[in-house]
Amino acid sequence: MAAPLAPVELIERSRRGEPVDAASVEAFVRAWLEGTASDALMSAWCMVACLQGIDRVQTQALAQALVASGDRLELATLGPTGDPQSTGGVGDTTAIVAAPLAASLGVRIASIGGHAQAHTGGTIDTLQAIPGFLAELPLGRFVRQVRDVGIAVIAHPTRLAPGDRRLRELRDATGTVPSAALVAASVMSASVASGAAAVHVDIRTGTGGVIGDLDAARATADLMAGIAEHWGRSLRWSISDASAPLGRCIGNALEVTEAAEVLRGEGPDDLRELAVCVAGDLAEAAEVVPEGEGRERAEKALTEGDALAMAERWIEAQEGDPAVWTDPGALPSAPFRIDVEAPGDGAVAAIDARGIGEAARWVGAGRLHADQSIDPVAGVELMVGIGDRVIQGQPVAVIHCRDEWVGERGRELAETCFAIAPEAAEPRPIVLERGRGGA
Amino acid sequence: MAAPLAPVELIERSRRGEPVDAASVEAFVRAWLEGTASDALMSAWCMVACLQGIDRVQTQALAQALVASGDRLELATLGPTGDPQSTGGVGDTTAIVAAPLAASLGVRIASIGGHAQAHTGGTIDTLQAIPGFLAELPLGRFVRQVRDVGIAVIAHPTRLAPGDRRLRELRDATGTVPSAALVAASVMSASVASGAAAVHVDIRTGTGGVIGDLDAARATADLMAGIAEHWGRSLRWSISDASAPLGRCIGNALEVTEAAEVLRGEGPDDLRELAVCVAGDLAEAAEVVPEGEGRERAEKALTEGDALAMAERWIEAQEGDPAVWTDPGALPSAPFRIDVEAPGDGAVAAIDARGIGEAARWVGAGRLHADQSIDPVAGVELMVGIGDRVIQGQPVAVIHCRDEWVGERGRELAETCFAIAPEAAEPRPIVLERGRGGA
Repeated sequence: MAAPLAPVELIERSRRGEPVDAASVEAFVRAWLEGTASDALMSAWCMVACLQGIDRVQTQALAQALVASGDRLELATLGPTGDPQSTGGVGDTTAIVAAPLAASLGVRIASIGGHAQAHTGGTIDTLQAIPGFLAELPLGRFVRQVRDVGIAVIAHPTRLAPGDRRLRELRDATGTVPSAALVAASVMSASVASGAAAVHVDIRTGTGGVIGDLDAARATADLMAGIAEHWGRSLRWSISDASAPLGRCIGNALEVTEAAEVLRGEGPDDLRELAVCVAGDLAEAAEVVPEGEGRERAEKALTEGDALAMAERWIEAQEGDPAVWTDPGALPSAPFRIDVEAPGDGAVAAIDARGIGEAARWVGAGRLHADQSIDPVAGVELMVGIGDRVIQGQPVAVIHCRDEWVGERGRELAETCFAIAPEAAEPRPIVLERGRGGA
Repeated sequence: MAAPLAPVELIERSRRGEPVDAASVEAFVRAWLEGTASDALMSAWCMVACLQGIDRVQTQALAQALVASGDRLELATLGPTGDPQSTGGVGDTTAIVAAPLAASLGVRIASIGGHAQAHTGGTIDTLQAIPGFLAELPLGRFVRQVRDVGIAVIAHPTRLAPGDRRLRELRDATGTVPSAALVAASVMSASVASGAAAVHVDIRTGTGGVIGDLDAARATADLMAGIAEHWGRSLRWSISDASAPLGRCIGNALEVTEAAEVLRGEGPDDLRELAVCVAGDLAEAAEVVPEGEGRERAEKALTEGDALAMAERWIEAQEGDPAVWTDPGALPSAPFRIDVEAPGDGAVAAIDARGIGEAARWVGAGRLHADQSIDPVAGVELMVGIGDRVIQGQPVAVIHCRDEWVGERGRELAETCFAIAPEAAEPRPIVLERGRGGA
């Protein structure tokens, strides 16, 4: 067997679109994790993956190396386990609803949540807006909570796929987040390491997600299916429309408020529909509901309050205040609110999700520097949706912020995001495609 | 004025092909040089420049920041000054001939030479194969030598465009060398800082160079012209064919031997012709010969020995052994030589320059790791040129190396580089286009 390529040779070959063998990719990732290959090499390779892609062999090898960077939990004795994942988007509230919803159907949820990346939010940042919520649990406690409560969602632990955690941080810090291959390897390696037998990945597609278009989303699904098959996981996926923000709330405490509305049977239609699709399909993949009945059972669990009850047990188990689901006053809120006004009369034709995400990131809901901390109260609250009629000067969004100057810049960023047209556009469906793969 | 973009925002915008203002680029480069923006950010941005390019505004701003990273010499009092530069290729011998040749026509040569990057050679690495040669001179001595001897070629000094030196090292280490914008900013910033009024850049184009095709070469020339204009430099450029290796020698001591042959009026036609073109055009740009007579005057200086005499004075001034120009025995040579055999009968239709460059790099003529030292004796000597008839098993190249095992791998890499066809191909011209720009 030939010696593995030197990292710089590997990058040059990937850059030229030439094949690279799996052993060389695994050696490169190991060398990077051991510190003998630099962050600068890894970020350059990640940018190749963003701009022209890396092939299936390299993607699978990357996932392999990330899983191998730490321990791997084995949860088969706990019964039907599942993990609702998302590739991240502007308004990243789905898993907060879908996780307790699927758990209320009998799926034991064991999930590593993500952090905000680029202009998109992260499940863990959102959960950390809940007073008292413990995102970091010892692995033994994590497994016991999955068994006894039926749901645990934790921050990336240092022992499970630590390479993926480091790679997410590096990608977030270097502008190398959006890549079908890197997203597939990252999401799947964390899921494999945390041990759930079934996984659902919602691939958020459009400017508000990190996956740009339908072709890239299908490629992501296909790469994920390959990894799921290798590790014997049952994969379901959805491709959802992220060209506009999901729901009306972008920012961490705001998103908890909105998740609570949906869990109480209210809230925006798009978020409710997507969460029902995710939870229903995950329940089918975990074989706790018959094929074809997932969606209907999930709707029922929302309506009858089972999901809300499960959400309360879950947050209580992780030491958070379960009152957040029923009392908006239990959440922290921002000292400043600044109105964003409609630029003209007419119907809202489009809301630029990336722009809204950038505005939320700017006011503190995400990070612009690797060492920045996230402000739970910061964000953007939309007052209108696509198709709504507005008059010039009417507030179309509210910036929530801790500092007026910062909020003012956020308002400037947000006010360019609303396109007003004479006539209302047809509303777009939120779920564009669904599929399955793996074991 | 808006605050400069955070580096990660800048990278995301460049990655999406959106405009970025000059002040943000300059702030990013400064932050990187000061250590507040990481190498990982810079290599990611360089990969964007390689794969999809960055625009003229960003390129000019990068050059500006690199020049501003150190001091700038002012050589106007020395008379007509010139700098022969190359974008680098497999067989990088041109400047070693063109510099003393132009100097013998009256151009005072003040030049910072480059190091090997990726699969291409570097002028300084080549000169350092000469016993005793001092590549690093104090700046005062550099200027005096330009004035008194008429020629000095030195390694990148820490005081002149130190940012460019660091950027070259980072790009070499991270596989981010080939980019029209980065090449233009790098070559021109070093030339501007070292102070020559006229500059000639040979843009080596094809797999043996770092510029891939004619379109990219023209874009490089255009970006360089913009920088030259900003700084009031007179630019001449050539685009030369680097699809096959230049000359017959690839590797440092080997290239000195070949430069010596050309200086003595012998040597391969392609190298001689390119050196005459470079020196003649540079002499015209520096206005030491009348427009249109540069080439003829350069031919004469080679034939009559003026260039050889200048080369001897030059090497002596930098403490090297001037005997290298007339006695091949004055140079170090490799303990092992391994034949590469012709794969069949016929005519040599093509010699893959990048493959030959990779073989030379593998045996030690270049670097595979940032901290590797270059072996002056290592390289590849071609025994045939394009169009030559060969019979199967005949040696078509010789690997020069210090270690047999390493040389054997070099032989394997090199033997795939020769395409043999039934009939000889038309020889291609070495100089594809010439032009001018700047002041």
